Amino acid sequence: MNEITSRKNPLVSHMKKLGADSAYRRERGEFLCDGEKLYHEALSFGAEITAVLYSGSAPAGSLSGALLYRVDKSLLDAVSPLKTPQNIVFSCRIPKPAARNDRQGLTVILEGLQDPGNVGTIIRTAAAFGVRQVLLAGGCADPYNPKTIRATMGAIFRQPVAETDLGGIKALKEQGLRLYGAALGPGSRDIREFSLGDAAVAIGSEGRGLSEELLALCDGRIIIPMTPDSESLNAAVAAAIVMWEAAKERL
Amino acid sequence: MNEITSRKNPLVSHMKKLGADSAYRRERGEFLCDGEKLYHEALSFGAEITAVLYSGSAPAGSLSGALLYRVDKSLLDAVSPLKTPQNIVFSCRIPKPAARNDRQGLTVILEGLQDPGNVGTIIRTAAAFGVRQVLLAGGCADPYNPKTIRATMGAIFRQPVAETDLGGIKALKEQGLRLYGAALGPGSRDIREFSLGDAAVAIGSEGRGLSEELLALCDGRIIIPMTPDSESLNAAVAAAIVMWEAAKERL
Repeated sequence: MNEITSRKNPLVSHMKKLGADSAYRRERGEFLCDGEKLYHEALSFGAEITAVLYSGSAPAGSLSGALLYRVDKSLLDAVSPLKTPQNIVFSCRIPKPAARNDRQGLTVILEGLQDPGNVGTIIRTAAAFGVRQVLLAGGCADPYNPKTIRATMGAIFRQPVAETDLGGIKALKEQGLRLYGAALGPGSRDIREFSLGDAAVAIGSEGRGLSEELLALCDGRIIIPMTPDSESLNAAVAAAIVMWEAAKERL
Repeated sequence: MNEITSRKNPLVSHMKKLGADSAYRRERGEFLCDGEKLYHEALSFGAEITAVLYSGSAPAGSLSGALLYRVDKSLLDAVSPLKTPQNIVFSCRIPKPAARNDRQGLTVILEGLQDPGNVGTIIRTAAAFGVRQVLLAGGCADPYNPKTIRATMGAIFRQPVAETDLGGIKALKEQGLRLYGAALGPGSRDIREFSLGDAAVAIGSEGRGLSEELLALCDGRIIIPMTPDSESLNAAVAAAIVMWEAAKERL
């Protein structure tokens, strides 16, 4: 059994920084996860786990013991960036964005969604409804932020997610992808009038909506109808309705 | 212009306690709100505002000046229970639960949803999709918790919400309300097979689901179909799909 007792241990510092620092995650190509549920999801979906810190008894699972380090709960709490840390934190390799052309279904593009809880929830819903890929454009929360990861409830290990920009979106359009913007505006049409099956839908932040640049790339604008005196939906809720409408023919 | 400079001022203590203490909110029949957006929603939906603390310039709106108190930003920050307080906090009277028999539409019953963000998001979605009433049973987050209020984005002022229990749900059933439980189990059927228009749907917590007692009251169980390898949806997302499916005939 490996044991770490010092907070100055290099692995401890490394993992703490993975939880706290987005640029460091990119540089190292790893991210930090927290909790047993995520650990079992990571194992069952074949994520590349690079190190595990745990307190109490060793976690069940088939991982090589060489990667497991037992630590005091207080040290674990110091590593975890979350308010209510659990008895295990671990690091994983960030997967390479796969083209996923093997996969049918809706492409969801998020722009400027800063709340990690919303981004994580959208990734979770995407996995539930068989979305082809979730693309994060312009100023979204980091998908590998520990708060995002926790909100995905493990879906981060099975849902294709990638970061993109306007150039990337243009390239997808040139490959023939139809793109709709979820936005009120000239010619907006009820979501139910479209066949979204293999199209892409872009969803902006609740405060600012989609950028003019992204809207200019869209083949049309869709809206989710609401009662007259209400103004908006939470972004994760709006995305869920879009994904459900696109997926339900196949479910 | 009224001004308060002391943190020991009784109104300041009162408002701080409204933000922090659920039992105190019930005892006083008031709750605390934070931010200009909520303030304008409260004014436009005729909420009974009992006091306003602001820093900077006086908030626009038609409220009697007698209720407005200018304070230092640091004092405002001390009153607000939120991590990123804004320049205004105010207290409102908790509305009396109205029978709302004037209103058609779905009844949403939540059981054991402890996350205030989820409960607030569900109230917001309910307002958007014209839900008749949201009933909170057994161990839900307080709808008047400031975090819940913020997540409603003002919908708390226009969406009928009430707390209930198994007795209350039984009474509704005796009045003829059809009740479905969102739960996997014997005889669960796809949500699209039901006409939910004026029925009730009960949604449980993600961890524990609905209680046996509540399930025993249900006329049937509904599920939202998902892809085979996924297990669950966020509770606010599941509730949103249910509300959308029930409302879409009328939208």
